[in-house]
Amino acid sequence: MPGAARGHSIDTIPTPALVLDATKVRQNIARMAAYTKAFAIANRPHTKTHKSVAIAGLQLAAGAVGLTVAKVGEAEILARAFADREPDILVAYPAVDPARTVRLAALARTATIRVAVDSPEAIAALSAAAREAGTTIGILVDLDVGSGRTGVPTVERLVGLAAAVDRSPGLRLDGIFYYPGHVTVLPDVQAAPLGLVAEKLAEAISRFDAQGLCREIVSGGSTPTAYQSHLVRGGTEIRPGTCVYNDLNIVRGGFGSLDDCAASVVCTVVSDAVNDQVILDGGSKTLTMDRCGPAPDSGHGLVVEYAEAFIGKLTEEHAQVDVSRCPARPRVGERVTVIPNHICPVVNLHDNAWWWEADGSLQVLPIDARGKLS
Amino acid sequence: MPGAARGHSIDTIPTPALVLDATKVRQNIARMAAYTKAFAIANRPHTKTHKSVAIAGLQLAAGAVGLTVAKVGEAEILARAFADREPDILVAYPAVDPARTVRLAALARTATIRVAVDSPEAIAALSAAAREAGTTIGILVDLDVGSGRTGVPTVERLVGLAAAVDRSPGLRLDGIFYYPGHVTVLPDVQAAPLGLVAEKLAEAISRFDAQGLCREIVSGGSTPTAYQSHLVRGGTEIRPGTCVYNDLNIVRGGFGSLDDCAASVVCTVVSDAVNDQVILDGGSKTLTMDRCGPAPDSGHGLVVEYAEAFIGKLTEEHAQVDVSRCPARPRVGERVTVIPNHICPVVNLHDNAWWWEADGSLQVLPIDARGKLS
Repeated sequence: MPGAARGHSIDTIPTPALVLDATKVRQNIARMAAYTKAFAIANRPHTKTHKSVAIAGLQLAAGAVGLTVAKVGEAEILARAFADREPDILVAYPAVDPARTVRLAALARTATIRVAVDSPEAIAALSAAAREAGTTIGILVDLDVGSGRTGVPTVERLVGLAAAVDRSPGLRLDGIFYYPGHVTVLPDVQAAPLGLVAEKLAEAISRFDAQGLCREIVSGGSTPTAYQSHLVRGGTEIRPGTCVYNDLNIVRGGFGSLDDCAASVVCTVVSDAVNDQVILDGGSKTLTMDRCGPAPDSGHGLVVEYAEAFIGKLTEEHAQVDVSRCPARPRVGERVTVIPNHICPVVNLHDNAWWWEADGSLQVLPIDARGKLS
Repeated sequence: MPGAARGHSIDTIPTPALVLDATKVRQNIARMAAYTKAFAIANRPHTKTHKSVAIAGLQLAAGAVGLTVAKVGEAEILARAFADREPDILVAYPAVDPARTVRLAALARTATIRVAVDSPEAIAALSAAAREAGTTIGILVDLDVGSGRTGVPTVERLVGLAAAVDRSPGLRLDGIFYYPGHVTVLPDVQAAPLGLVAEKLAEAISRFDAQGLCREIVSGGSTPTAYQSHLVRGGTEIRPGTCVYNDLNIVRGGFGSLDDCAASVVCTVVSDAVNDQVILDGGSKTLTMDRCGPAPDSGHGLVVEYAEAFIGKLTEEHAQVDVSRCPARPRVGERVTVIPNHICPVVNLHDNAWWWEADGSLQVLPIDARGKLS
């Protein structure tokens, strides 16, 4: 882990501060590694959650076959950081514009680059860029399995895209991409929707086999369904992101416990002037306005030390916390720990995190790919 | 304006891109300057919206008496940038912890530093830090006029705080601070709540005068009420932020028009695979999850070129846009312009903006104080 913390302790770091519990991060990485190993599923963690070279390094050391990114800027940072091992990077995002396709084609000189696409336009643009650069880009064709975000809605169209990839110079068909992000109910009652996902995938795989189309990689994932991935036959890899840190979405969705939450934001109480309220120095520019999906009315995060406190309102730099039900109340100047609703965009607001070991030592962990939008 | 754009045009900059219409920014700055001059109100723009040294320079050149910040990190950047003119910076945020008070006391060596406070703890901490540094910090005491965020609720307590400041070495009582952010109804029907603000302020001013407490500065503001500031007797300055760029909160609240919106996010359509929908490459990590206050159900921004399009859902890097009602639909690869709901946190997500002149020229404008959380 890079970066000295220059004599700081957890009680003196400037707030608001993004703190990573090193022990819990290692446990979360080890747990996913053990699960994917047990079921012989490849793990390609989505780095959008941590945006950190150091954390990606821990994931690779634990057996990840490669890394997932959303944006080309993220791929560039990881490709450079792991250049010594020819990294295998999946861009889980349709690249259709020259600002992305040209850069990806260039990256393919030193890294294995794969891109998920769902349009003929993306295939044409990536093929042109790869030919121009003299490189090869691997392609996964994106099937919508119900989330309704990207991906073609029918297996028929998926096969059409795959055939187009097969005909396109500069491209190599690697398989199928899907995103089961809509499957977020509790494990014991989610058989039906995950079953529908599996059914649609099975149909796609069978059509691919019949037409001799490559499906070496069948890539799914998202943290809520990650530990049910063995139930989806034919899937070869998953791309879980959030589970490296976890957050209230995971806890309140029933997919993890508060003890699994490795990332928190340490805040200072800066005001108690208004009755029954304290103000923390972390607002929407620190915690984001993301609501908790499974519990939209549960406020803007959990104050660990004051279970009865309710973060009812955020403005840019203020959290307004209702403390009327707290038996003891936090005082001005006191520090408290907030577990965010959704950790991924929170990390993206911080230039650095504090890597906090069980012995109390701290190191500065840069969020290397923060703010890489294109 | 600093930074060359290396041969880019508005049609080739990588997306998502934060674009500033230079003509509109200048108009917005000039309009506020003319208003405050006409009514002899001092203008101390809140830089939280732009976080840019260059834009702050334009505001000072237009007659601003000083600058407002939320965080000490922002104050440090501005104090350094304008060191040649001994800048007058108001930290509109209660500093109570050593990480802030010590830095502010040090800054007071080269800049006029004023801080708004609402607790005895903040007064004690700032006094100790200023004495230690051998500097003087100006203090405004914060009166809650109804927004219920910070500020003491009664004039009695305000006078108590002011007297405590007067007794504290290292501190100089400068006056009264208030935030009328809750007054957001339309101009023609807001006389009552703004009247209540004015009434409470008048009471405070009269008590200050009776006790010989300094109220040289009586600082209010926030963009929605900015152009009604002359109705608040006794106010000496305002701290408008958003009006430098404007956004859908301002437009839909009835405080400006779309033509006044100087900042937008240029996005690319990256997918149209799902029926009646296109995906833009700007999600919550680009546009934030902030809803439009006056119209919470109006989606996540306005697509300028397609008035009937509706940005119904954001995930981290995807905007899902319902285009079912669009007579013509945007195609994959096409660029569109999005006006955000709330521009301030959007700017904070971008490392740079593009400064776009009427002649089509572009320059890179760094968001110098982006991510300064403490």
